[in-house]
Amino acid sequence: MKVVMGVDIGGTDIKFGKFSNQKLILKEKIKTNKSDDGTHIMDEVYQKVDEMVGIDELVAIGIGIPGPVVDGTALGAHNLRWTKARNIRQEVYDHYQGRVVCTVLNDANAATLGEMEFGGGKGYRDFVFITIGTGIGGGIIINHHLIEGSTGSCGEVGHLRVETGNIRRCNCGLYDCVEQYASATGIVKTAIELRRGRETDLHKLDIITAKDVFDLAKAGDDVAMEVVYEMVDKLSTALSQIATVINPEAFVIGGGVSSAGEFLIHYLRKRFKELAFYSVRDVKFELAKLGNDAGIYGNEYYASLELENKH
Amino acid sequence: MKVVMGVDIGGTDIKFGKFSNQKLILKEKIKTNKSDDGTHIMDEVYQKVDEMVGIDELVAIGIGIPGPVVDGTALGAHNLRWTKARNIRQEVYDHYQGRVVCTVLNDANAATLGEMEFGGGKGYRDFVFITIGTGIGGGIIINHHLIEGSTGSCGEVGHLRVETGNIRRCNCGLYDCVEQYASATGIVKTAIELRRGRETDLHKLDIITAKDVFDLAKAGDDVAMEVVYEMVDKLSTALSQIATVINPEAFVIGGGVSSAGEFLIHYLRKRFKELAFYSVRDVKFELAKLGNDAGIYGNEYYASLELENKH
Repeated sequence: MKVVMGVDIGGTDIKFGKFSNQKLILKEKIKTNKSDDGTHIMDEVYQKVDEMVGIDELVAIGIGIPGPVVDGTALGAHNLRWTKARNIRQEVYDHYQGRVVCTVLNDANAATLGEMEFGGGKGYRDFVFITIGTGIGGGIIINHHLIEGSTGSCGEVGHLRVETGNIRRCNCGLYDCVEQYASATGIVKTAIELRRGRETDLHKLDIITAKDVFDLAKAGDDVAMEVVYEMVDKLSTALSQIATVINPEAFVIGGGVSSAGEFLIHYLRKRFKELAFYSVRDVKFELAKLGNDAGIYGNEYYASLELENKH
Repeated sequence: MKVVMGVDIGGTDIKFGKFSNQKLILKEKIKTNKSDDGTHIMDEVYQKVDEMVGIDELVAIGIGIPGPVVDGTALGAHNLRWTKARNIRQEVYDHYQGRVVCTVLNDANAATLGEMEFGGGKGYRDFVFITIGTGIGGGIIINHHLIEGSTGSCGEVGHLRVETGNIRRCNCGLYDCVEQYASATGIVKTAIELRRGRETDLHKLDIITAKDVFDLAKAGDDVAMEVVYEMVDKLSTALSQIATVINPEAFVIGGGVSSAGEFLIHYLRKRFKELAFYSVRDVKFELAKLGNDAGIYGNEYYASLELENKH
């Protein structure tokens, strides 16, 4: 049986999906071994892939990397401790002596393609996928194609500036990037600021999580609701910037924070309409559907597409 | 001789270019007749086109409209007093009994294509054209193709929000759009604010223009220079938002204000580098080259492309 592998290399773990006829038939996960500057990662990928492929025939492999990618080359991936550019496509090609088609994608872009083909972006020709977790990432689909950008950095939407006062410093060195306000980390930061001197159940928590904030807001805690409003205001500001630039049909919202679900989407839709330019205001909001599997789906899809193009 | 016409319909005048083998051989201009809700405009276009074509054979016509366009239909054009959607492509097709290929583009998008093929964008695969005049508009080229957006409003970059204090109201109904700060109008507004109580030659002017501000700044007037810095800061903020979303290779700066030339580009490039996310920071800045002719060139190019595709 001919099979295609989708591999999603993350800073914490590596997810593997084995596909036959675009159907996921086996799914596994290993810890990411970042020792020795991440030099063992690709060997462990090959080992797991071979084990999962077994007696089947591997025809294509799609790999996702947490960092910018241009033409099969990962320019660098801090979370894997890869500091130099690596031509992963060539490495995989060499490893399998040219018998296997390989594609390489940035992780958020892979998830975007997964959501396009099998998830919340299905049926849209132009949409932007936004993944909100510890940070904020994204990917852009135009005319049913992923756009990757001149240096592989399209859709770095977590670093849109949404304040002008240089209030919160971002890990990237800039100030007031939207992920400092609207990511899980940003929400917690705001909660800690806003609960000071206020009557709120947020004080009952030793460690606040974004989920706690949404749960308390849903339960009617006013201060938690203010935290949600602040998150929504900043995220909508970024979304309105995106819409003004590329005028998409839809936003597909994923990542851990999107588990707040329709509650979040409701306020987001409302605030976005207030902030967006009139001719780009009519945007649909969808929840992502594939969760943590979006990456393996997207990498498989992209590798399958490349396989088709070669035949 | 087979000829293609490029027509750029603006709120003040309509520009016509007659092309043979992609070469401009005749150029004319008429005033835009906006009486009776702009109902005479297309008739006057046909009249002028026929006059300029003369004994030659018109094979294609590309038309630019100051408003959003989707699939040949102008959704509305306030500057022409067109309040309803009009399928211009069909109208032209019917007028010439189906003998002439017609394309319709938003005016900024047409100028973008003109600059791509014959101007400052030549040689770039991905770039954003920014035109700075009374307002600010733009167009986006990705992979050597124009992207128009789901409702024909890609590149409405004049309405990127660059302040969060609701300081200057924009004509669009929102606050703090970049064109309120970095357009010719915005620059003058800033100059009037900043000259108060200051020692500056800006007081010698009854009516300030953007050109005056740049001329005084170049001549060493400190307050005029502050006005330039403020314009550059706001425009760079918008450009960094664009770069974060679509990671272009280059910005091509056109429109009346771009006649400030390298002086403007120098400060823009510097401030942009400070504000942009590290992986999208390496962007080239170019001056547009076609001036007011960009539209006729772009419309001709697009119509010629469509003609090729039909054969």
